[in-house]
Amino acid sequence: MIVALAGGVGGAKMAHGLAMASDPAPLTIIVNTADDFDHLDLRICPDIDTVLYTLGGIANPATGWGIAGDTRIVLDTLRDLGGEDWFMIGDRDFATHILRTQALSQGSTLTAITARLATALGIVPKIVPMSDQPVATIIETPDGSLDFQAYFVGRQQRDEVVGVRFQGAEGAIAQPDAIAAIRTAEAVVINPSNPIVSIGPILAVDGYRQALESTAAVRVAVSPIVGGKALKGPADRMLTSLGHESSAVGIARIYAELIDGLVIDTADAGLADAIEDLGIATLVTKSVMQSNDDRARLGAEVLDFAANLRSNGVGRR
Amino acid sequence: MIVALAGGVGGAKMAHGLAMASDPAPLTIIVNTADDFDHLDLRICPDIDTVLYTLGGIANPATGWGIAGDTRIVLDTLRDLGGEDWFMIGDRDFATHILRTQALSQGSTLTAITARLATALGIVPKIVPMSDQPVATIIETPDGSLDFQAYFVGRQQRDEVVGVRFQGAEGAIAQPDAIAAIRTAEAVVINPSNPIVSIGPILAVDGYRQALESTAAVRVAVSPIVGGKALKGPADRMLTSLGHESSAVGIARIYAELIDGLVIDTADAGLADAIEDLGIATLVTKSVMQSNDDRARLGAEVLDFAANLRSNGVGRR
Repeated sequence: MIVALAGGVGGAKMAHGLAMASDPAPLTIIVNTADDFDHLDLRICPDIDTVLYTLGGIANPATGWGIAGDTRIVLDTLRDLGGEDWFMIGDRDFATHILRTQALSQGSTLTAITARLATALGIVPKIVPMSDQPVATIIETPDGSLDFQAYFVGRQQRDEVVGVRFQGAEGAIAQPDAIAAIRTAEAVVINPSNPIVSIGPILAVDGYRQALESTAAVRVAVSPIVGGKALKGPADRMLTSLGHESSAVGIARIYAELIDGLVIDTADAGLADAIEDLGIATLVTKSVMQSNDDRARLGAEVLDFAANLRSNGVGRR
Repeated sequence: MIVALAGGVGGAKMAHGLAMASDPAPLTIIVNTADDFDHLDLRICPDIDTVLYTLGGIANPATGWGIAGDTRIVLDTLRDLGGEDWFMIGDRDFATHILRTQALSQGSTLTAITARLATALGIVPKIVPMSDQPVATIIETPDGSLDFQAYFVGRQQRDEVVGVRFQGAEGAIAQPDAIAAIRTAEAVVINPSNPIVSIGPILAVDGYRQALESTAAVRVAVSPIVGGKALKGPADRMLTSLGHESSAVGIARIYAELIDGLVIDTADAGLADAIEDLGIATLVTKSVMQSNDDRARLGAEVLDFAANLRSNGVGRR
């Protein structure tokens, strides 16, 4: 059993790579839900959808999110009628949100409707939201608080981030299947997602940190920072403004208590010693995923790395 | 000031004709809302939308409802994901439902969001829902009760109708602008809509019947039955199974206390005497609207008919 923690486009690509590499071993992907929000009276779960569309083979290759070839007739018509169109939703994407919103209002859990969507898309790995209770990332800026999507999409991440809160995290219950998967996994992978706003919310829900600390699994992360920069999104600036180092070493320090190994890019080979000084093994490889082959290769390398650490006695706490 | 009562495709076509013929006199169209229902967690108002799309010049000419040239990407995707697709909603049509549902959940009245949609579509006449409170038509059949859309769309009107109820009508408040318009109008037109399930719900809301009985306006109806048959929909069979006569005379009897004149088709010219025996004036004309020109001509004839009755001392109760 393999477990991955994911949020956003990099997390979804890595999840896809792990799905290809782990087959036929069972894979559980635990997905950040703190980006989720209510918009146009629909419940929108951007990270779950990106994982669904990526593993379903229908993701838009140009953006990494949304559906390939999707049209925007509904959104354009909404705009013409005076409605909000600042958050891009394609027509096929609307179907996902409509189905989910209806299911939730009929009493379905987010876990159940996510599983139903995954099945409809022919996805074999188990995709599990971090919690069935809503958690919302709030971004603190010098000018005040912003809801996550207002910061991320509405204001194009232009604000300096001076703090991050996960509203509702203290009352949220970690998804039980997710915790059970971490406890019984051979390997847990923290995907190359933003450590603050993609992985951070998962770790903020009571139970995940404890499960990661006590699991017998080998735990490896893949650095989302390459050459000091985020491959996508504001992680680099966010790390710096919150007092972290925007580097693979900074990532290693953030996850220090939770990982046995860190996968870093060849561009960061010079940082391997500093990371190993923290008691974290390193795998230096080409970590930037540009093609499906890159995903599959990196997935296999990550799982081999974990297996090697395991055969060296790592894990089994 | 002209007022029209409308529901369904025939009602919308007549409203369009009256809009063309009455201009620049103000026109208020009071629309049945008892077909409205919650579906896919959206609030859908079929009769309001048919009036909006028809007066906005975007109605599908083939069906009379829906939007011309609309696509069905969302609905097809929903079906592929296991969602319900028995009720046809085009992509542009979805935008209407999404905007309305969001507005209602934010506290807007149905009146306010209908006005907003009408403005966005460039519609000059005032389109007013019969009530801001939900009313739901329930169809009684030999096999039990059916929600209106389950009967009308889901089961294609195949059931015998042995009774009709308007759930919520007793607690609903007649839309105040609608009542004020009836009270101050020169002419009130009951459009050629199903008298049982389109006009019936309006009359079931406290205030409408009284306003129609006491207004100084000339009140004319246009028969939706031509040659004993409904031009569209199940009105003929419904009239018969509920003990009415499926004819222009049957229509005259149903509206007897509420109208001064009835417009009937040339096919029914032989019924004029029987209708006049009920104390109802008749106008015999080509009442089937196939083109926009038909709508404008019939609208003008209906208004002339009312004006002639008025100059003969009819109305002014």
